[in-house]
Formats: sequence, structure tokens, C-alpha cells
Amino acid sequence: MNIIEIIEKKKDGKELTEEEISFWIDGLCDGTIPDYQSSALLMAICINGMSDEETFYLTRKMTYSGDTLDFSMIDGIKVDKHSSGGVGDKTSIALMPILASCGVKVAKMSGGALGFMGGTVDKLSSIPGMNVFLDTEDLIRQVQEIGIAMVGQTGDLCPADKKIYALRDVTGTVNSLPLIVSSIMSKKLACGDDVILLDVKFGDGSAMKTVEDAEQLAKLMISVGKQFGKNIGACLTSMEQPLGNAVGNALEVKEAIDTLHGKGPKDFTQLVIDSGTELLVRAGLYDEEEAHRRVMDAIESGKAAELLKTMIDKQGGDSRVVDDTSILPQAPYVTEMKATEEGYIVQLPGQPIGELSMALGAGRTSAEDTIDYSVGIVLNKKVGDYVSKGDTLAYVHHNRPLDDVWIDKFHRSFVYGDEKPQIKSLIAEIL
Amino acid sequence: MNIIEIIEKKKDGKELTEEEISFWIDGLCDGTIPDYQSSALLMAICINGMSDEETFYLTRKMTYSGDTLDFSMIDGIKVDKHSSGGVGDKTSIALMPILASCGVKVAKMSGGALGFMGGTVDKLSSIPGMNVFLDTEDLIRQVQEIGIAMVGQTGDLCPADKKIYALRDVTGTVNSLPLIVSSIMSKKLACGDDVILLDVKFGDGSAMKTVEDAEQLAKLMISVGKQFGKNIGACLTSMEQPLGNAVGNALEVKEAIDTLHGKGPKDFTQLVIDSGTELLVRAGLYDEEEAHRRVMDAIESGKAAELLKTMIDKQGGDSRVVDDTSILPQAPYVTEMKATEEGYIVQLPGQPIGELSMALGAGRTSAEDTIDYSVGIVLNKKVGDYVSKGDTLAYVHHNRPLDDVWIDKFHRSFVYGDEKPQIKSLIAEIL
Repeated sequence: MNIIEIIEKKKDGKELTEEEISFWIDGLCDGTIPDYQSSALLMAICINGMSDEETFYLTRKMTYSGDTLDFSMIDGIKVDKHSSGGVGDKTSIALMPILASCGVKVAKMSGGALGFMGGTVDKLSSIPGMNVFLDTEDLIRQVQEIGIAMVGQTGDLCPADKKIYALRDVTGTVNSLPLIVSSIMSKKLACGDDVILLDVKFGDGSAMKTVEDAEQLAKLMISVGKQFGKNIGACLTSMEQPLGNAVGNALEVKEAIDTLHGKGPKDFTQLVIDSGTELLVRAGLYDEEEAHRRVMDAIESGKAAELLKTMIDKQGGDSRVVDDTSILPQAPYVTEMKATEEGYIVQLPGQPIGELSMALGAGRTSAEDTIDYSVGIVLNKKVGDYVSKGDTLAYVHHNRPLDDVWIDKFHRSFVYGDEKPQIKSLIAEIL
Repeated sequence: MNIIEIIEKKKDGKELTEEEISFWIDGLCDGTIPDYQSSALLMAICINGMSDEETFYLTRKMTYSGDTLDFSMIDGIKVDKHSSGGVGDKTSIALMPILASCGVKVAKMSGGALGFMGGTVDKLSSIPGMNVFLDTEDLIRQVQEIGIAMVGQTGDLCPADKKIYALRDVTGTVNSLPLIVSSIMSKKLACGDDVILLDVKFGDGSAMKTVEDAEQLAKLMISVGKQFGKNIGACLTSMEQPLGNAVGNALEVKEAIDTLHGKGPKDFTQLVIDSGTELLVRAGLYDEEEAHRRVMDAIESGKAAELLKTMIDKQGGDSRVVDDTSILPQAPYVTEMKATEEGYIVQLPGQPIGELSMALGAGRTSAEDTIDYSVGIVLNKKVGDYVSKGDTLAYVHHNRPLDDVWIDKFHRSFVYGDEKPQIKSLIAEIL
């Protein structure tokens, strides 16, 4: 087999065999196929696509390119949720303790993040003392003991994905359905969960611009997951604006905790309840009505908050944070941003808000960057709200003075109109 | 400007600006843009194409990426011929002395070759003592003195092409019209010739499979050349079978010399005469009838052979070769290959014959390989000939025993039929 022939085949729009895909991924991982050949192939895949079979073969090959995690020692049904990423998305931090307190098992593994969408691991790390780097044994032991653990990626999971992702990032080949599917799914499938709920975001600031794109992506991921024998479903979630009000690590942890105390923002709370219900139904434990009742009870009874406390404690963190969020890192300055225009907010895209939060120090542009957990933005007005001049749009938590460029970009992120826009439900569709 | 944005633009099928193309080529040459990014862009160009304007910008940028040769010190009309490459193509070695003896100036620069199609420089190097590496000054001086020089590429001509070509070769992106055009034309345009005749091959064993493909390529090259103010035309030449009878370096030199003595194979002799006539007409020296008469006279009077002798002499070679080709390197073995089937030869594609010649040692697969100038194949039967079992198909010149795999491949190169195939003229069209 010859990599040039494989590249030419895909260039001509033909279908690659499982052997050809294996040959490429093996060579990519062991370095015998240089990056300039892989990037040519990635571009050909990007433009000419891949069939469902090719996508499945690629995903499977990537899944087994490194370690896989065996959760069979954990009794009960192991559930996982994966979000395609969004600004202000702290869903896992609230949802997972709810699920675990409803009787399923949660061994949640999240990646760190680059770019304007923060990662769950970075957010959890804002809790003083919190250890998110358990090895596989400790992870499994903790889930057996208390039903939940939330950690960063452990072991050498999907090294092929790491290499491909790094290459896609610098060769204009990020936006390709089969490459997105194989990247997300290989990481999910390398873990031993039984039930997986995908949260596929669409809209400005997501990779998928329309609900149709998101649906296509979700269906392909579900198809691949089912071929692996997984119980897998998906929510298509609108990302027309940031999720909830808080953007920034400690600020998002606070909002997730508030939500477990029944005091979260409406849109975010609804997403957590709906996702939780869907996952419990999928796990086959309850019908929809009972699942919804259990989720509500987990919040109202304080059981979910209590379990989050236990988990933080187990992972070395200061669990008092669940009762007193002021223990979280606090930024030295909090500035109220006042509206300079008036009218209904008709657009508030996530991407600029995410970038503004990064500019405050809340994210990484390169792997070496350190994060300031305290900084970020808490929105006080969102799409559909009427704003008068001088109303507080948001509270900015920062550690150095805000400059004019930043302030200008902040105000330009809000688009005003005369008519109250229609607010659509966050979850557009469940597949 | 950002290379990732440029790659994405071409991935989305959009047109690149002159500035974007310049930015890429500059980065490619100075190493600030790594190969894996260039290869992704090359693949996007390969699949999505380039407009005529983009092709012109790319060609111009590549032309001026290194040295350019100024032939203005040479009096008279400087002509050049470029073949897109074919098995057994020794046209330049016969044609150029004819042209120079008809009053135009020839400063011919050829590349070496990789793969199954040999290069003119390699062929000339089979003449004992022949120096094909003159520097630019010596090249110009020799053309001023005797009207002709034939050498390898001198100076740092088109470094961008060298880099791009090397990358295309290993990334499955060779077969792309704008990339072929910019590669060929940048090298031609970096030289100071006034009149250029392109010989664009089509058929099995050429990059262009059909006459229509060849016409498209030729038209694009002519269009680019005209934008540089060149007098440029093209012949579309069938490569259904090897050109002439000889394939292999010294064997091809012998055939070119035989042709100058009026004893060459019919198809090859006709191509030389037709190309020569066309070039003299293009140069504006004679009408077609007079041009044809001059070409015939150059052969019949022995003037062209005499000039080849002078040129070989000037370049340090053993010029007695023109009168006695047995001075050329001789292979230790010559084996007659006898027909094992009978019928009309209906197909004899160039590519396997070229590959068989390479397998004997006549070519290079990597730049470090050394060439055995003596080996090769002299065909005794070609398409349209009737063959009885036991007839001699070819004489194989070799330096080690022929193995069964080689012999088997040789016989499979000939396709027989019951009907005499129609023999078309070698030149299908002149543009």
C-alpha cells in the first residue's frame, strides 16, 4: 500500500477501504507518513467528503489508536454527555451530579480547551484545591464509591485524534463533517460508557451554523455510535447567544452551583432539566414523567448539590464552595457595563462574548498560557430583553483596567431592534 | 495576511488575489510557511482549480522567485521548444541543431528527469566527455559563437517551482492544470527566449489522457505566455506509443544522430521536420514552404549534423560520435525479444516500455540513483505492424540477465488484434 495512491484516490472523490484508512492512521501515528502527506489527504477529505462507512472505519481506527478505558468494573449504567462546545456552557457541572444522584454512574472525562469556548476541566480547576487529574484506577474507584467523578483526560486516549486535530487546526481543515465526527466519537468511544447524550450546538459561534447542519452531524455521530453498540442520542441546542449568564471559569462554576440550588438562569436550568430527563429515559430507568420528577427532586431536595460537595471533597477541593461561592477566586475589579443605546436586544452572539472573556484572561490561546479563573462576564440582559440607556448590560470581572478597544467590542456585541424578537426554545430537537 | 485563511478560501472554491498568492509563495520559499500547510493548499488547488488570472499570478510569482536569464546579448531570434515529456522523446537533440543551422539561436536548457520519461540532459550526458553544466556566461558566449548550446538548468531558476514540484510529487497533487501550467511556464519564462513552441503530449503514458485535455493545457500555457509578451505556440502530439524506436539514453542519442543523417524512424523524423518548420515560421523568418525547404536542406546537406558536432566539441564531448555512434556507451548484452503471439500490434503504450527501460537501469527513481547510459530498448515492431510468432519485437540492451518478471511485463506491453489499426498523424493539432 502506498500513501500517494491513497491521497490520489480521495482526491478523485473515491471511497477509501478500511485497510487504506488503517494504513494512513498507522503511518500518521508512528511518523512514517509525514505531516505534509496527511494534510493533503485531510484537505481531500474536507472537500470530497467521506461515506458513512469510511467515517465509521476512521472513527474505529482512531478509537483504538491508543488506550481505551474499561468501565465494566463499575456496577450500574454509565452515562456520558458530550457538548460540541459553546460559550458559557457549564452544563456538565450541574447536570452530572443530578444524574448521579438519580442512580446512574458518571465517570466524566473532559478535555481542556483552546480558543473562545472554555473547557469543563478548566472551570472545575477554579475550585480551590480541586484535583482533576486522577489516574484511571482512582477514577474508577471513586465512581464505585460515590457514583461520580469528573476529571481531565487520563491515559493515552486517541493519540491519532491529537495528531489529526493539531494538523487540522493549522491547515484550514477543521470544518469537515467526517473529521468532526471521528474526532468527537473516537474520544467518547474510547471510554466505557453505556449511554451517551450528544449536545450538538448550532448558530453563530458554533461550528454548525444551522439546525440542519447540526442535525446532519448528530445523525452521523449517532449512526457511528450505534455501530459500536452504544445507546446514543442527541439534543440540537441553539447557541444564538451565550448559555446562561456567566462566562468565565469561577463565574460559571458559581452559576452551576446556583442552578443546583434552584437559583440558576432560566434558559440554562431548563437545558439541564431537559438533558437530565432525556438521559435517564435513555438509560431505561424511568419513563419520561418519572425521569423529570427525579431530576426536579434531585435539585429541590438538595441531593445533587450534596453529591457535588462529596465529589469536590473526594477530589481534594474545598467543598464549602457549594454552600458559599464567595470562596471561589474573586477578580479585583467588577465593572458594571451600562447600555449606550436603547431597544430590544435582538442579537448577542456567543463568539465575541467568548473572545472578550478570553481577552480578560479567562482562556488560553496557546497551550502554555495560564488562566485567570476569577475573570469573566456576567450578563444582566440577554436577547429579548428591553434595554434603556444606562441599564446594566453586564458585570465584568477583571484584573486590570478595561481598555477602549475592549469596551468598544463589548458594546458592538449587542444588536438592538425595535421589535421584541421571538425567543425559541433552547433545545430545537431531540434525536 | 494569514495562510490558514488563504487555504480556507481555496478550500471553499474562491479565487485568490495576487497578494495572497505572493504571500504563499514567499512563505513557501523562505520556510515561514511549513510544507503541511502548502500541501493542504496544493490539494485544494488540485480539486477546486484556479482561474486563468490566478494561474497567471502564480506563474509570474514563480518565474521571479529566483534568477532569470537575460539573453538580450545574443543577437538574433532565440527559440525554445518544450515537450511535456514522453517515452523515447529525443526531439530536442535532433531538432535544435537543425533550427540553429537555419539561422535562429538556440540556448536550450533542459531539466534532468525522474520517473519513466528520460530527460534531454541525461541523454546528452551519455556522449563521452560531454559537459552539460555551463554557467550562464559560458552558455551565452557559446550561443553567440556557434549559435547553439544545450545544457542543464543553470543558476537558481524558479526555486519556488523546485519546492512545489517536490511537494506535489509526494502528495498526489501532480495532476492539476494550473499547477502543471505554472510549473512549465515559470521555467520557460525565466529564460530569455523570444519564440517558444510547446509540444504537448496526450494519450496513455502522458499526464494528459485525451487530445481535449492536451488542448486545454496548451491553450492555458499559450495564454499565460502571451501575457508575458512571448511569441508562443503549441503542437498537440499523440503519445499512444513510444516516439521513434529507441528508448534509453545512448540509444536515443544514436537515433537522433541517425535522424540528422536522414536515417531516422519515420514517425520521429516527421515530428522533427514539422516542429522545425513551425518554429521557423513562428520566428517570422520564412513562409511555411520556405521553412520546410530549409529544414530539409539542413538535414540533407549535413549542415545540422555538422553543427551538432561543433556543439559537442565545444562542450568537451567526443564529437566523433556524430560520424560513428559506436563510440557511445554499449551494453554488454543485446537480446532479441521474439514475438510469442501473432497479429497486428494494436496498442503499445509508452509507460510500460519506459518503466521497463528504467528497470534496466536507464533512469532514476531517486535523485541519488546513477544512470547506466548504455541500456534500453530498441523497438523493431510498432503499432500497425503485423507480427508472426518468432518475429523480433525489439532489441534489449542490458547489463545483467533479464528476469522472468521483466520478460513477462515486456510481452504484456504489446496488445495484438486481427485488424490493422488506423495510424493517425503524430501531430494532432497545431495551436
